[in-house]
Amino acid sequence: MPTLGIDLGGTNARAAVVDAQGQILASTKLALTERSPAAVVEVIAQAAASAMAGAGGVEVRGCGVGAAGQIHRETGVLAVAPNLGWRNVPLGALLAERLGRTVRVVNDLAAAAWGELHAGAGRGAHDVYVVFVGSGVGSAIISNNQLVRGAGGVAGELGHTKVVPGGRRCGCGELGCLEAYAGGHNLIAQARELLASGRSTVLAELAEGDPARITPVMLEHAAEAGEPGAREIHERAGQMLGMAIANMVTVLNPARLILGGGVLMHCPGIRRYVVEGVQALSSTTAREELLIAEAELGDDSGIIGAALLA
Amino acid sequence: MPTLGIDLGGTNARAAVVDAQGQILASTKLALTERSPAAVVEVIAQAAASAMAGAGGVEVRGCGVGAAGQIHRETGVLAVAPNLGWRNVPLGALLAERLGRTVRVVNDLAAAAWGELHAGAGRGAHDVYVVFVGSGVGSAIISNNQLVRGAGGVAGELGHTKVVPGGRRCGCGELGCLEAYAGGHNLIAQARELLASGRSTVLAELAEGDPARITPVMLEHAAEAGEPGAREIHERAGQMLGMAIANMVTVLNPARLILGGGVLMHCPGIRRYVVEGVQALSSTTAREELLIAEAELGDDSGIIGAALLA
Repeated sequence: MPTLGIDLGGTNARAAVVDAQGQILASTKLALTERSPAAVVEVIAQAAASAMAGAGGVEVRGCGVGAAGQIHRETGVLAVAPNLGWRNVPLGALLAERLGRTVRVVNDLAAAAWGELHAGAGRGAHDVYVVFVGSGVGSAIISNNQLVRGAGGVAGELGHTKVVPGGRRCGCGELGCLEAYAGGHNLIAQARELLASGRSTVLAELAEGDPARITPVMLEHAAEAGEPGAREIHERAGQMLGMAIANMVTVLNPARLILGGGVLMHCPGIRRYVVEGVQALSSTTAREELLIAEAELGDDSGIIGAALLA
Repeated sequence: MPTLGIDLGGTNARAAVVDAQGQILASTKLALTERSPAAVVEVIAQAAASAMAGAGGVEVRGCGVGAAGQIHRETGVLAVAPNLGWRNVPLGALLAERLGRTVRVVNDLAAAAWGELHAGAGRGAHDVYVVFVGSGVGSAIISNNQLVRGAGGVAGELGHTKVVPGGRRCGCGELGCLEAYAGGHNLIAQARELLASGRSTVLAELAEGDPARITPVMLEHAAEAGEPGAREIHERAGQMLGMAIANMVTVLNPARLILGGGVLMHCPGIRRYVVEGVQALSSTTAREELLIAEAELGDDSGIIGAALLA
């Protein structure tokens, strides 16, 4: 029987009816106009109803939700969801009541990893490490077909491992996190600092002088054009990601390393640093049978994974 | 029913009859005079027979072996066991034939972690990270009561994560491993280099000028006496361990971090760096409910864990 998958972002909620093979039968995406828990639950319920109608009124068995934030694993409470400005919202319970079905809430990256494992680049593997570098840096660990969730449900936070003690301040408030150097938001922030310092004519041209237009791809272009300032930021981000991911490969010994997220998809230069870093720095034994693959499901990995986890 | 635990080191084999609560009922330790697989299997069998006789001829159900080396998880083949000079020895099968019972072979650190989880400092926790710093640096991950073994069975190799790309050569042949700076063997090697350079009068005194007598504890004394060379090695090792372990706490979100091994047991200064590093550098959310504990079972953790895994 199909299940319902929900992808809850900061600006949209998307619902999909997904079959047992991870195929999306129908999906509906609705904008979140208001961010109160009650309003968001209502939008999700509408998206779900619409997707189910779209799938021909098919009966679904359960509902899985992937949401950006820290989620308490037993209760489905969103402890912190920065995109929504939520703290301690019992999303699982609210949604279960509204939908009249059981609901399981997991972190969006855990859902995406689960989707890639069962319907994407991880098919056939039992031990998988999934890294997404988008605006943030996150990861999910699958060991022997089980998600590693951690005692508080916040395992996988690769972006908040420290690479420079006392270094750049991260969005999480701490200093020297990997994400503060290599996450998309922070690549842009660093590129803006560079633009403001007047040290990048390439960036100034590409962004037409407007810091708001800068993207990680522009930074990569400036780096590849040989501008020292851009190169420094770009190389540092790539090398830090490469070493951090290599070290996780050494410790976790996955059969497959899956790379996804906007920065890794759209910045081949950064992706190259990562792949080369993993090849050069992970231990030979851990790397022996490692396959490095690209995430296959794109934006659908989370919703498919959430549905399959339901 | 009790089970049989075997701890296979480079110089001794120890067998113990262990009850279901992880209590050792009887144990026998025998020296390995010869290191051929056949000879080692024979010594293990003698130790096992003696331990079982010591326990009053009690019947045992299965046999678990903890061995230093890389072990193929399905077959019990020791792919590489440097202490014994073995490559691709089917220890599990050889021992099962000799003992006439089922045998499960695991890495010694995985066994120790399992012992600490069920009968030591990890009791009551489901998500545990165990780090041992002895002559080498190793770790074991327990997620939701399951050992994380990795695709090839070599998960946990924290000692071979890289801390300085292109840095000191490690015993594993690679460059810049954590173990090359912070493992006991390498602390001694670095202290010997210091002694040879004539830059440590404290070490020269403590070791009576004999490099062969140097221990990590002497290095710690020299560091605490304020000698710059010793301090540099000691501080670097402690800080590298602290950051690496903090980052694993961030990614794994364990309920308990268990610290063991000779260096952490006997060098309180290094242990302090580790604890302070974890407190300062792991992410606040991962650390929220973290308990840092000392390994409780000492040298028995491996044999108890192996028996409980049987």
